[in-house]
Amino acid sequence: MDKINKRHKLVTTWIKEAAEFILDNKDNIDVEEKTSINDLVTNMDKGIEKELVKKIRETYPEDRIVSEEGYGDDVEELDGTVWFLDPIDGTLNFVTQRENYAVMIGIFEDGIGQQAYVYDVVQDKLYSAIKGRGVSCNEQTLEVPKDRSLNEGVIGVSSVLLVENKFPFVREIGKASLGTRVIGSAGLESVEMVKGNTVAYIAANLKPWDVAPGLMFMEELGMKATRFDNSPINLLENNDTVLGTEAAHRQIMDKINPK
Amino acid sequence: MDKINKRHKLVTTWIKEAAEFILDNKDNIDVEEKTSINDLVTNMDKGIEKELVKKIRETYPEDRIVSEEGYGDDVEELDGTVWFLDPIDGTLNFVTQRENYAVMIGIFEDGIGQQAYVYDVVQDKLYSAIKGRGVSCNEQTLEVPKDRSLNEGVIGVSSVLLVENKFPFVREIGKASLGTRVIGSAGLESVEMVKGNTVAYIAANLKPWDVAPGLMFMEELGMKATRFDNSPINLLENNDTVLGTEAAHRQIMDKINPK
Repeated sequence: MDKINKRHKLVTTWIKEAAEFILDNKDNIDVEEKTSINDLVTNMDKGIEKELVKKIRETYPEDRIVSEEGYGDDVEELDGTVWFLDPIDGTLNFVTQRENYAVMIGIFEDGIGQQAYVYDVVQDKLYSAIKGRGVSCNEQTLEVPKDRSLNEGVIGVSSVLLVENKFPFVREIGKASLGTRVIGSAGLESVEMVKGNTVAYIAANLKPWDVAPGLMFMEELGMKATRFDNSPINLLENNDTVLGTEAAHRQIMDKINPK
Repeated sequence: MDKINKRHKLVTTWIKEAAEFILDNKDNIDVEEKTSINDLVTNMDKGIEKELVKKIRETYPEDRIVSEEGYGDDVEELDGTVWFLDPIDGTLNFVTQRENYAVMIGIFEDGIGQQAYVYDVVQDKLYSAIKGRGVSCNEQTLEVPKDRSLNEGVIGVSSVLLVENKFPFVREIGKASLGTRVIGSAGLESVEMVKGNTVAYIAANLKPWDVAPGLMFMEELGMKATRFDNSPINLLENNDTVLGTEAAHRQIMDKINPK
């Protein structure tokens, strides 16, 4: 338990330092396109990831790192301790809005979530989970959301799923819910689930660092996180992902995979 | 000017009192369906509107009121001073999330916007406009957002437009932008425009009280607010609405109404 508590303190400090760096430098960012005009990276993403990787390597030299901007390791198996880093989740929001983004870390041991962090920098809210202890916001344990079904709540969806026609079932699921919401950050969408603000979140092609903290939050709260075909999330590849309350997740699976 | 300043102080006080009432009573709300399971009204919407109407009538007996829950007047022309009230904009968010909703008031004289208010209750941010003085947040004047085009920003869209197939051009517009976002409150979407977080907001069938403050915000900031066919917003009826920077609005009009 000492090991976990110590690591929790360290990670919290590192994340707050990263956030301070972002807030101090947010008026001087350089933006580059990665694969398209809405897949962006900034000097901030890179700088923060580099610094976090350095700190992790110094303190936990045995651990391996899976991260967005290329400073991590080439991880092909989930044995041992693996860190998932997303220095700025919601980079497009960061670039165009300077809000609605998060610094995220997930720590898994032999593929099992141990600790997870989503820091909403502008709101100064750090959502964290330690295995077996639930999910907290700024160290206050949150209540477990009710098991609401689709027609009792709104759902989070990724922008691409609504504008593209590749997944028409998403619109059907949207219609079965009370409405859809789009934030543009997988991490903040998982926070909406944690708060009970949404009953599900549906997104295609999430990277391991996008989904790792949300996966652990769902496990801690007795909620579901799977791929579209109801198989488990695989943290070694990209995942078409559904987070949901038990009831909403079941309804969504029935719609995606009708018998 | 004294008249405007006095009215500004009064309205600010009334809105803060309404918000206090909401926050004090948010654990005891009764929900009723209006036209469907996602068109809701609560005892809070009704209570606040009743109280605001009472205050307006006591202080400004000549003025008329257009409001959501039925305590206002039957207004058929926009001459004189007309108040547009939405006691809780984003009622579905209020009911399911207890956040992401706003108290809204717009004051128009002979159809011209004089004052507008959108109060994000949970964030404690009051966005307000006085004719000729720009838009403020908590009394601090905000910068006028840049005239960014669709491919330089994300856009706000109403949930219905993305899940229904009635307006397929909305998805084309979404693809031409950097991405879509959905909040579920027309008032807070207009605030996203005011902050420069989005370059446009597209929504079908907005009621006069949904769109009145946003219309005035756009006028103060040199941004555009029209109906889908590029005609002016009509505050006596429902409006399929586009708010936008000049550049994004022009691009959207070209897509909705191709030559």
